[in-house]
Amino acid sequence: MHSDAPLLTPSAFESVQLIDHHCHGVVEHQLARPEFESMMTESNWDAPAGTTVFDSQLGTAIRRWCAPLLDLDPHVSAERYLERRAELAPSEVNARLLRGAGIDRYLIETGYRGDDILSPQGMADRAGATADAVVRLERLAEQLAPQLQSATDYAESFRAQLRTELTTAVGVKTIAAYRLGLDFNPVRPTDAEVAAAAAGWLREIEGGAEPRLDDAVLIRFGIWCAVDEQQAIQFHIGFGDPDVDLHRCDPLLLTEWLRLTRESGARVLLLHCYPFHRNAGYLAHAFPHVYCDVGLAINYVGARAPQIIAESLELTPFDKALFSSDAFGLAELYLLGAHLFRRGLLRVINEWIGAGEWDAATGEALIRKICADNAVRAYQLDERPRFVMAGATS
Amino acid sequence: MHSDAPLLTPSAFESVQLIDHHCHGVVEHQLARPEFESMMTESNWDAPAGTTVFDSQLGTAIRRWCAPLLDLDPHVSAERYLERRAELAPSEVNARLLRGAGIDRYLIETGYRGDDILSPQGMADRAGATADAVVRLERLAEQLAPQLQSATDYAESFRAQLRTELTTAVGVKTIAAYRLGLDFNPVRPTDAEVAAAAAGWLREIEGGAEPRLDDAVLIRFGIWCAVDEQQAIQFHIGFGDPDVDLHRCDPLLLTEWLRLTRESGARVLLLHCYPFHRNAGYLAHAFPHVYCDVGLAINYVGARAPQIIAESLELTPFDKALFSSDAFGLAELYLLGAHLFRRGLLRVINEWIGAGEWDAATGEALIRKICADNAVRAYQLDERPRFVMAGATS
Amino acid sequence: MHSDAPLLTPSAFESVQLIDHHCHGVVEHQLARPEFESMMTESNWDAPAGTTVFDSQLGTAIRRWCAPLLDLDPHVSAERYLERRAELAPSEVNARLLRGAGIDRYLIETGYRGDDILSPQGMADRAGATADAVVRLERLAEQLAPQLQSATDYAESFRAQLRTELTTAVGVKTIAAYRLGLDFNPVRPTDAEVAAAAAGWLREIEGGAEPRLDDAVLIRFGIWCAVDEQQAIQFHIGFGDPDVDLHRCDPLLLTEWLRLTRESGARVLLLHCYPFHRNAGYLAHAFPHVYCDVGLAINYVGARAPQIIAESLELTPFDKALFSSDAFGLAELYLLGAHLFRRGLLRVINEWIGAGEWDAATGEALIRKICADNAVRAYQLDERPRFVMAGATS
Repeated sequence: MHSDAPLLTPSAFESVQLIDHHCHGVVEHQLARPEFESMMTESNWDAPAGTTVFDSQLGTAIRRWCAPLLDLDPHVSAERYLERRAELAPSEVNARLLRGAGIDRYLIETGYRGDDILSPQGMADRAGATADAVVRLERLAEQLAPQLQSATDYAESFRAQLRTELTTAVGVKTIAAYRLGLDFNPVRPTDAEVAAAAAGWLREIEGGAEPRLDDAVLIRFGIWCAVDEQQAIQFHIGFGDPDVDLHRCDPLLLTEWLRLTRESGARVLLLHCYPFHRNAGYLAHAFPHVYCDVGLAINYVGARAPQIIAESLELTPFDKALFSSDAFGLAELYLLGAHLFRRGLLRVINEWIGAGEWDAATGEALIRKICADNAVRAYQLDERPRFVMAGATS
Repeated sequence: MHSDAPLLTPSAFESVQLIDHHCHGVVEHQLARPEFESMMTESNWDAPAGTTVFDSQLGTAIRRWCAPLLDLDPHVSAERYLERRAELAPSEVNARLLRGAGIDRYLIETGYRGDDILSPQGMADRAGATADAVVRLERLAEQLAPQLQSATDYAESFRAQLRTELTTAVGVKTIAAYRLGLDFNPVRPTDAEVAAAAAGWLREIEGGAEPRLDDAVLIRFGIWCAVDEQQAIQFHIGFGDPDVDLHRCDPLLLTEWLRLTRESGARVLLLHCYPFHRNAGYLAHAFPHVYCDVGLAINYVGARAPQIIAESLELTPFDKALFSSDAFGLAELYLLGAHLFRRGLLRVINEWIGAGEWDAATGEALIRKICADNAVRAYQLDERPRFVMAGATS
Repeated sequence: MHSDAPLLTPSAFESVQLIDHHCHGVVEHQLARPEFESMMTESNWDAPAGTTVFDSQLGTAIRRWCAPLLDLDPHVSAERYLERRAELAPSEVNARLLRGAGIDRYLIETGYRGDDILSPQGMADRAGATADAVVRLERLAEQLAPQLQSATDYAESFRAQLRTELTTAVGVKTIAAYRLGLDFNPVRPTDAEVAAAAAGWLREIEGGAEPRLDDAVLIRFGIWCAVDEQQAIQFHIGFGDPDVDLHRCDPLLLTEWLRLTRESGARVLLLHCYPFHRNAGYLAHAFPHVYCDVGLAINYVGARAPQIIAESLELTPFDKALFSSDAFGLAELYLLGAHLFRRGLLRVINEWIGAGEWDAATGEALIRKICADNAVRAYQLDERPRFVMAGATS
C-alpha cells in the first residue's frame, strides 16, 4: 500500500514566503518565572500548588525546540531554560527566536494590551521582517466612545474612524465570540437600534464606567461596518481563555451570518478553531468567502500538531487554509507557531505521499498556498504596500 | 509492541459482495469544467476567482485514482484529466468508472434531480450490477400533494402511495435534517395536526406555490408512516450543502425519537454523519435498531479516509456499520467512494493486526459485515427480489 | 524527521503505582452468555437477532487479551472463551483478571447495584490491592429520604450523613448528567428552594413512590454540599447508557459552574468524557481545579485506545490527567481498562519520542503523574489512611 515516491524535505519551505496572518506583539522585558508561565497558558490562574505549566505539550515543545536557539541542549529542564533566558538581554532572546521563526510578514492585531508589547514597527525590526496592522473592532469602539459629544454621532464617527485606520491596516478582528458568543443575532442592526445602544453605552461611560464594549447591537454594528468596507474580517473561534463559553464558540453558529454576507465582498477568517476545526473546514468548503486556520492550537497541542493540521485539511479547500501563530508576548510562541506548523504540515504531506495518495507536486502547491498565496488573496495584500519593514525607521 | 501476524491483502474483498446502501444516479452527458467542478463540491457557489475545486482532497483523489481508468498517469493535471474525459463518450466514462468501482448492488435514492440522472435500471446496466430503489419521503409528498382533491385525503393517500412504492423499493430516505433540523419534535403528530397542515400546504400549492415540503408536521408524519411500515429509514446526518444548519444535524438530536421507535421494527440508517460520526457510533452502540456509515465524507476527505473510518469504528458495533458512496452525478464519486473505502478499511484493519490487537479472521469478518451482511440485515434484502439487474431490459 | 532516541519499554510502569480513581465492584457468580454480553455493552437491550456483542472492539479485546489469562490462545472464539470461563470458579476468574490488571489502589463508587457486586473489602482481597470508597451523592439522598420524619430535616440530615460517609470515603460522585443533563442551573439553590423540593419528594415517597432522586434542586444541593466539604467531586461526562441525552453531557456545559467553584477548594474530576474528551482537556487546561480521564472509553474503543489517549493529552496539563477503568461487574473490564491504558499510553509517548518531539524523561514523568501522582493530589490521598487492604479482614 506504500509508495516509493520521493518525499518532501524541509527545503520545500525555503523558497516560500511565510505570512503569519494573525498574531500580536512580543514583550521585551526580563520575565520572572510566574510571568513567563502565565503567558504560556490560556488559563487566568496559577497552576495547582506543586505543579508547573511547563508540564504540558507546550512546555515540552519549548524545552525541545527553543532551548537550542539559546545555546542549550534539547529537552533541558525548565529551570535551566529560564536561567539561560535571563542571562540574555530580552531583545537578544526576541531576536534569536523571532528570526528563527522564519516568518516573513506579520499581520499584527494591535488591540490587546498594546502598551505592553512591541508595535508592528518594533516587531518588523526585531524579526527582520515586514509587518502590517489588523484593527480590533471592539477596541476601536472603546477608544472612540469616550471622545464623542453625542450618541447620535456614534455610527458616523465609527465608520469614519474605521476608514481612517483601514488606510494602513490590512483587515479587522472581532472578539464577538468572547463578548457575545457566536450565536449572536446575524441580522444587521437598524440605525435606530445603533443610536439607542450608543446612547446607553455613552451614559454608562459618562457615569464613570470603563469603556468596555459588550453591547450586542454595537458589536454587531462594528462587524457590519467591516462588511460594508469589504474587509478581511478575523473571528476568534473556539478555544481561548476561561472568559469564553466554549460551547458558544462553535463556528457553525455563524452559518446564517455567513449566508447573509456571502455576496458582500468581505472575506471571513476563522481563527484557531480548535476543537471545532473540522466544523471550520466545512464552512470553508461550503462558503466561498470563508478561510480558516488552526493557529494557537498548534502551539498548545505540541507533539500533536500534525494530527490537528491533518484534521483541518479534510474539508478545507487548499485555497482557503491559512497559517497563523496567534502568538502574544513570548517570543517562543512565534518560533513554535511557525516551526511546529511547518514540521507538522511536512509530515502530513509526506504521509500522504508515502501512502501513494499524493504526489510531491500537490504537496508543494499546498505549501505555497497555505504559507502565502491564500493570505495574499484573502487580505488582497498584492494591492497594499507593506506598512512597516525592518529598518524602516531605525 | 508490533506483531508479525500476516496482514490482509486487497484480495480479502474479492469474494465479498459490495452493497452501496445509499447513492443516487450518474449523469450521462458531456460535462464542461464548470459543471464538473460544481458536482465535486457540496458548495452551491463557484470557488473564489483564481482557484479551482480540484485543489482539494477530492480533486487530488480524482487525479490519483480515476486518471488511470481513463488511460492517464496518476496525478495528471486537472486540465489533462478533463481533456481526456471529454475525448471519451459519457457512457464509456461511466462504464469504466462504475465497473472499476466494483459495487455489486446499488440502493439508489431516486428523489433528487431524478430527470438528470440514470434510473436504477440505467445504473444497473452501466455498472454491470443490480440496483434497487429507495424512496425519498419528502419527494413522494411533493409529487402527491398537487394531485389531491382534498386535504382530508392527504394522510390516507400518502400511506397508500408509500405502500405502493414499497412493493419494489427497499427503504425510504428523509431529509428532515435539511428541512427542519434534527431537533424536530420527536412525537408522532396527531391526525388533526396532519389534516390541518395538509390543508395549509394544499392552499399554498393552489395559490401557485411550488410543492416544496417544509412543514414540520407533514415531514414528521412521513417519517412515522415509514415507522409504521417497519421500514429501513435513511436519515441525512451531518455535512451536506450550505442549505443545512450543520449544528442542527448532530444525530444525538434524534435520541428521543430513537427511544420512541426502538420497538417499532423499523431500522434507522444514519448517513454520512461527518463530523458527528463518533456520535453516530454511540447511537449504533446504544440502540439496537440504529446503523451508520461515513459515506460522502470518504470522498471529500480523500487521503484522510482511513482516519475517518477508524473513528467511526470505535463505538459502532461491527454488525451496525454500513458502506455507502452517496455518489451523485459524477462516475468518479462511485469509483472513489468504493475504492477509498476498501483501501481505508484494509489499512485500518492491518494497523490493528500489525499492532497485535486483532487477528486476520476478525478483520475478514468485519469486511464481510460492512460490505454486505449488515445491509442485507438492515434492509431485509434476502426477503426481497432484486428489482433491476444488469441487462434486464437491454 | 525521526529520532534515534531510545524508546520506553513496558518496564516504565513497573516502579509506578497504578490508581484506578473510578470504578465499581466485580460480580462473582457464574455468568451465562446473555448476562455476560449485557455487561459488555452500554446498551440496555439485546443485540439484533443473529448478532453478538462480541463483534465489537471490546469483544475483540476480550478475546485477544483476557483469553491468555484463562489459559487460552489469543483471539479464541467467543464460544470457547465463555466455555473456558465457566470451567473456572468465579472467584478464580476474578482473581486471575484482577491481579493481571496490576491496579494497586481502587477508588470504588459504591452507589450502583451495590448488592450485586463485591464490596471494597472484597475487591481489595480479590485483587491483592487496597481500596477506598467514593460516595454517590444521589444514592446517599435516596437512602436518606425514606428515613426522614420531616422535610425540614432534609438539608441538615444530608450534610450530616455526607460528613459521616466522608470520614472514610475519599470523594463523591454525581450522576447529574443522567438525571438533569449538564446544562443544569449552576447557582447554589437557596435554603427555601431545598426545603420546598424536599417536601415535594418526601410526599411522593410517602405516597409509595420509589425513592429516585431526579429533582434538580436536590441534585444541585447535593453537589454544593460536596463543594462546601472541599471534596473531590466526580462527574459522569459523555458516553454512557441510553438513558443519557448525550448532547446534554458535554462538559463545556459546566463552564459557569466551574467559574463559581474555582476558589472553593473542591476538585472536579471529569469522568470518561468521550466523545467530548478534547473539550474536557480544555477545561482541565483553563480551570486549576479540573481533572479528567478517558476511562470507560478505553475499553469500548479497544484497538483505538492510543488515539483517544493522545487526543485527551492535547490540552490536558500533565498534572491534571487521571487513569480510571470505570469497570463494573466483569473482571475483564478491569484487566482491559488497565492494560489498554498502559499499552496505549506507552505507544503514544513512544511515537512522540520517536518523532524527536519528546525525550524519555518527559515520558517517564508523565507516566508517574497519570498513574498515581495526580490522583494522590486530587483526592489528597496522602492525608488519608487506606480504608481497606487486601487480607485486612480475611
